[in-house]
Amino acid sequence: MEKEQTTIVLFSGDLDKAIAAFIIANGAAAYDHDVTIFFTFWGLNTMRKEEVVKTEKGLLEKMFGWMMPRGANKLGLSNMNMMGMGPKMIKHVMKKHNALSLPQLIELAKEQGVKLVACTMTMDLLGLKKEELVDGMELAGVAAYLGDATKAKVNLFI
Amino acid sequence: MEKEQTTIVLFSGDLDKAIAAFIIANGAAAYDHDVTIFFTFWGLNTMRKEEVVKTEKGLLEKMFGWMMPRGANKLGLSNMNMMGMGPKMIKHVMKKHNALSLPQLIELAKEQGVKLVACTMTMDLLGLKKEELVDGMELAGVAAYLGDATKAKVNLFI
Amino acid sequence: MEKEQTTIVLFSGDLDKAIAAFIIANGAAAYDHDVTIFFTFWGLNTMRKEEVVKTEKGLLEKMFGWMMPRGANKLGLSNMNMMGMGPKMIKHVMKKHNALSLPQLIELAKEQGVKLVACTMTMDLLGLKKEELVDGMELAGVAAYLGDATKAKVNLFI
Repeated sequence: MEKEQTTIVLFSGDLDKAIAAFIIANGAAAYDHDVTIFFTFWGLNTMRKEEVVKTEKGLLEKMFGWMMPRGANKLGLSNMNMMGMGPKMIKHVMKKHNALSLPQLIELAKEQGVKLVACTMTMDLLGLKKEELVDGMELAGVAAYLGDATKAKVNLFI
Repeated sequence: MEKEQTTIVLFSGDLDKAIAAFIIANGAAAYDHDVTIFFTFWGLNTMRKEEVVKTEKGLLEKMFGWMMPRGANKLGLSNMNMMGMGPKMIKHVMKKHNALSLPQLIELAKEQGVKLVACTMTMDLLGLKKEELVDGMELAGVAAYLGDATKAKVNLFI
Repeated sequence: MEKEQTTIVLFSGDLDKAIAAFIIANGAAAYDHDVTIFFTFWGLNTMRKEEVVKTEKGLLEKMFGWMMPRGANKLGLSNMNMMGMGPKMIKHVMKKHNALSLPQLIELAKEQGVKLVACTMTMDLLGLKKEELVDGMELAGVAAYLGDATKAKVNLFI
């Protein structure tokens, strides 16, 4: 029997949406689906390294780099963000309930072989370099996404 | 012929997105699809009872309970919310045009047999109890959602 | 071989989400999919003409007309909007990288035969008239959307 396929476009840079995306992705991978998460626009911030990586950039690209959150620990909420108190509350209750944190969900996704793809067009526009992203990501464009999505039954835009 | 399946993850707690979700769900049910709405994160607020339900909770869970809107009549808009004026305007024009209100759309969905599923992980995290949700909901996790979604052609994340 | 189908519900009125929707739609059309974009709620603002079109309207409908952005050049961002500076920065980097602007992406979609459908229920509610929308759009309801979506593998809600 052919493997089920699942794809998620993670467009949003919100912590809560990133958590939802990785929970669905890890669930699908646990059920032996081939899973792709395609990170585009603000969603790419989820996969930035926390530390500053030295790169050659123009001024505007530097500005984007400064303004956008560096990685999974720095994201805000889509709702009830309350100047950063919301993310702290959510992280607190997740820990209390032994739910996996976003960085742990990302690790699990890698272990399960979820394909993590950075949108090359977004990287060009925002001036993000491959070395600024966490290891283990592929780079591809919308054509590659559509190639996966047309083989999948579950295709979500988050 | 096998029945078509449609699933919607309602993640958002915005009035306008909840209306869109229920219009699509009711439309699909009218065309004889098996329809599931999986309420997760803020989307669960749509299905809270309006009245306060006495439950045993810790402080943080009480805080979430106070801060989050109680049910379909209390939701804000994703856009042009204007401190509550936007939802009033939308409700007004919907009434004027004899469009079903969100509570009526929810009733219709129940009558049509749309499966309304509350995400157990979210309930744990935010401390929501089954008795705080409107009647007729099932409780399940991401595995149940994926089970339905892999049988469906239309799978939306709203 | 039957043609692949792709549908997108564009619910959001944000510039960045509209760009994402049209890039996916144009990509799918380039791979010879039949593509439908169904514009509903704030997504319809993307397709408004920039100029004021004289129409007979009630006061509330006039208010919606004034408050909502007129077309693809007037949209804000879902994130980092910064009172209009964000959209200018995004448009600037897109131009610098020779990426197609949203108006150009819309033109390309038309040339490629992407079906652009305005949700009649939203038009009724917000008091939008056909002559206020850019040329070449079809008008239809949720039934028509579902008709297309049940033939498609890639169905996104943006």
